[in-house]
Amino acid sequence: MEYTTVNYVAKKPKLNKPILIEGLPGIGNVGKIAVEHLIEETKAKKFAEIYSKDFPPQVFINPDGTVKLVNNEFYYLKAKKKTDRDIVLLTGDYQGLSSQGQYELVETILDICKELGVKEIFTLGGYGLGHEIESPKVLCATTDKSLVKVMKKHGAVFKKNEPGGGIVGASGLLLGIGKIRGFQGTCFMGETPGYLVDPKSAKAVLKILMKATNLKVGLSALEKKAKEIEHIAHQLREIEGMSKEKTEELKYIG
Amino acid sequence: MEYTTVNYVAKKPKLNKPILIEGLPGIGNVGKIAVEHLIEETKAKKFAEIYSKDFPPQVFINPDGTVKLVNNEFYYLKAKKKTDRDIVLLTGDYQGLSSQGQYELVETILDICKELGVKEIFTLGGYGLGHEIESPKVLCATTDKSLVKVMKKHGAVFKKNEPGGGIVGASGLLLGIGKIRGFQGTCFMGETPGYLVDPKSAKAVLKILMKATNLKVGLSALEKKAKEIEHIAHQLREIEGMSKEKTEELKYIG
Amino acid sequence: MEYTTVNYVAKKPKLNKPILIEGLPGIGNVGKIAVEHLIEETKAKKFAEIYSKDFPPQVFINPDGTVKLVNNEFYYLKAKKKTDRDIVLLTGDYQGLSSQGQYELVETILDICKELGVKEIFTLGGYGLGHEIESPKVLCATTDKSLVKVMKKHGAVFKKNEPGGGIVGASGLLLGIGKIRGFQGTCFMGETPGYLVDPKSAKAVLKILMKATNLKVGLSALEKKAKEIEHIAHQLREIEGMSKEKTEELKYIG
Amino acid sequence: MEYTTVNYVAKKPKLNKPILIEGLPGIGNVGKIAVEHLIEETKAKKFAEIYSKDFPPQVFINPDGTVKLVNNEFYYLKAKKKTDRDIVLLTGDYQGLSSQGQYELVETILDICKELGVKEIFTLGGYGLGHEIESPKVLCATTDKSLVKVMKKHGAVFKKNEPGGGIVGASGLLLGIGKIRGFQGTCFMGETPGYLVDPKSAKAVLKILMKATNLKVGLSALEKKAKEIEHIAHQLREIEGMSKEKTEELKYIG
Repeated sequence: MEYTTVNYVAKKPKLNKPILIEGLPGIGNVGKIAVEHLIEETKAKKFAEIYSKDFPPQVFINPDGTVKLVNNEFYYLKAKKKTDRDIVLLTGDYQGLSSQGQYELVETILDICKELGVKEIFTLGGYGLGHEIESPKVLCATTDKSLVKVMKKHGAVFKKNEPGGGIVGASGLLLGIGKIRGFQGTCFMGETPGYLVDPKSAKAVLKILMKATNLKVGLSALEKKAKEIEHIAHQLREIEGMSKEKTEELKYIG
Repeated sequence: MEYTTVNYVAKKPKLNKPILIEGLPGIGNVGKIAVEHLIEETKAKKFAEIYSKDFPPQVFINPDGTVKLVNNEFYYLKAKKKTDRDIVLLTGDYQGLSSQGQYELVETILDICKELGVKEIFTLGGYGLGHEIESPKVLCATTDKSLVKVMKKHGAVFKKNEPGGGIVGASGLLLGIGKIRGFQGTCFMGETPGYLVDPKSAKAVLKILMKATNLKVGLSALEKKAKEIEHIAHQLREIEGMSKEKTEELKYIG
Repeated sequence: MEYTTVNYVAKKPKLNKPILIEGLPGIGNVGKIAVEHLIEETKAKKFAEIYSKDFPPQVFINPDGTVKLVNNEFYYLKAKKKTDRDIVLLTGDYQGLSSQGQYELVETILDICKELGVKEIFTLGGYGLGHEIESPKVLCATTDKSLVKVMKKHGAVFKKNEPGGGIVGASGLLLGIGKIRGFQGTCFMGETPGYLVDPKSAKAVLKILMKATNLKVGLSALEKKAKEIEHIAHQLREIEGMSKEKTEELKYIG
Repeated sequence: MEYTTVNYVAKKPKLNKPILIEGLPGIGNVGKIAVEHLIEETKAKKFAEIYSKDFPPQVFINPDGTVKLVNNEFYYLKAKKKTDRDIVLLTGDYQGLSSQGQYELVETILDICKELGVKEIFTLGGYGLGHEIESPKVLCATTDKSLVKVMKKHGAVFKKNEPGGGIVGASGLLLGIGKIRGFQGTCFMGETPGYLVDPKSAKAVLKILMKATNLKVGLSALEKKAKEIEHIAHQLREIEGMSKEKTEELKYIG
């Protein structure tokens, strides 16, 4: 096992002008939720796994009692029309723990992209605001000026100097290293409070992604999850509200 | 000295269909206590040591005043009946400090397993509950569905989504990487409060391990240790109880 | 991509007895501000970028909505007189995160210096005092005794045992490793409170640097920035002052 | 520059059955103070420097204004009588920051020992008690049982299970890895409060070291330093005493 290892679990697919859509864990888990939704809705097929010595030394327990080494996973999806572009999907349990691990992981992902003929990449993530938000906007950054225009047309938002801290992690690196290696790339970042997993933000991201690609999937499952999370958020706010009152009371007394 | 180094201190043993039983330091030290008990009771023979640059830069002092570089150690045990399977035991002072170190250590252990002809692995550990427990159950996870059935029969418990955080460290990785490399494996996790070393949990783990293997050892030494720990736990609870009262008193006054 | 990678974005320049001037992020960002000012004022030309797997896994967003992988950048500047020495400038987004990353980065910088014929290095940084300061002095350290005399003449200050903690980061390592590899080097450290970015300190550093080299640039842009920062610092002091009063009040009551 | 680099600054010395005496920074700086004292008193000659990418990325400033990359340094000392054993001394600014760095550093030191013909090693350090101590004992650990007897005769103390945490850092690793590589070694640990640098403990360590070797040096300089430190410790205790009173007062009022 190398520092980063690729394990093909099915025959390497032959794809027509494929694009990569990446969604790994991050703020609000927006990207991961979005890509997992795509995989479930389209019944995309897993063909490869990536292991990294920079992932935590951990296995998860499958529902049947067997173990699974933490990893990242590649899926593919053939377009319904032959002329449409095929799709490669990437999600996983973790991003690398260290800087070096993150760089190595992204380089491995780009190596696989090159082998598959992927030339365009979409990375999905969240943009943490730290406060509640009614209808999340989707911020955007790209590798090429020409893509900025295109994505604006699809409804993506470009705010000067936002995110001020740039993009940290695989969603950023895939574009940054990708650009140097000749890939075109777009990052969609759904606004999110960032406290909880955020299916609402994932939905907003997928809406724009569908405009930017030939992908079409239903979003009702996400909407249902979004309502569940909203319910939990409401409960948490109530508990918090109570404790705030208590604090106020204490301050008054003290 | 490589990043991870194997040092044979005796001739490499020739073993009959050996199984590996691993117990390294972890929650409640359950695995380590269990394997050390096996070594003492069976008088298993040490044949190899593993050193790693990811272990702490430390020596321990032997009772005779000499030093010993911290390591992991392999022992073996010939079955009493020729038809029974021989046993390899692994314990040690530390697990790797970093993710990479943990992965490298486990790969080295699996390399040795392959050389020795080991095809089945048992890893022993604790499952921290954070509260006292009368009779610890033994949770289980395996590399193969077929093993799940077998282990259930021996009394191991499979709870859906437990442990929720999966298995972290060598006990998990040996199964996770082992599975990819073609080993069969089972992890037994004894429930434990996790505050103190826990011979009672180790005893529970060994009871099931003995059913799952041809191994038979007395457990009275563990029972004795368990009583000593229970005594200490009782004393700690009393001190804690007193300080709680004090806290209550203070709250009342304040 | 290697651990540290050099990417030439223009033809490697042919330079006349060039000197390197380095200013990377650090205390008060003194070095970075100074070198960025030089680049802007002299319209120096970028010719190479350094990427490192020890930089954060991050891209920044350009004003036009495109991304830029975090890096260090080399610029050059031809002297106006043919007999004057040409100049290489180095600045960037980050220094290495780990010790090893810092050492590797500095060795890569020195490799490029050697290729370009650089034999003398100036490193610029801040010296954090932790309190406000009217007119910042510029402390100095060099690779050679003979340079100490020269830099004293230009107004640099050598205080015995200062900085007591030596020089940490690229500004120090370029001299330390450079000395071993046969480079001559001088580090100018502008005194700075260290709370905020400090253009005033950068100006003080540049004044001495200009005496020590054949470089001449206007400093009015830095003066303007210094006034802006002074204004912010004043506002912060007021807020702090208020909260101090409050604290005092509370102490009085309590 | 390798991860760990050796730089000979003088011709490699030809030595008669040399022993190594190591004293790097640690608890109470006992080992470093002891070896630096030996170097000063015997006017031992520096012949090599070790640099490591695991040392901090730092230079120190020499009194003359020049810089010095942080390192470890080797000195040697020819015995006065031709039949006596020559001595190699090792001290330095830092130990490695990471486990791996520590292991690599110690292996490099042992490589040099082997080249020089060193077969016996003495490592010097402190044993932190966390409280004041009138006359510090010197604890001991060795690579060989035969050495235990010898060192007891010289006045070194072997306490069962002490230090309970073993020996961490170069003083431990040189013995631990050294033992595996066939070196004989002894570690002397002077008892020390551990709050301040401790020349008194260093003196106690040197007294026993001199009995165990043919080395003879005056200790008056150390005694003087010990008195200075005692004076500082006394002042600190007074300040502490006052603040304790204050705390008591506050408790009484509160």
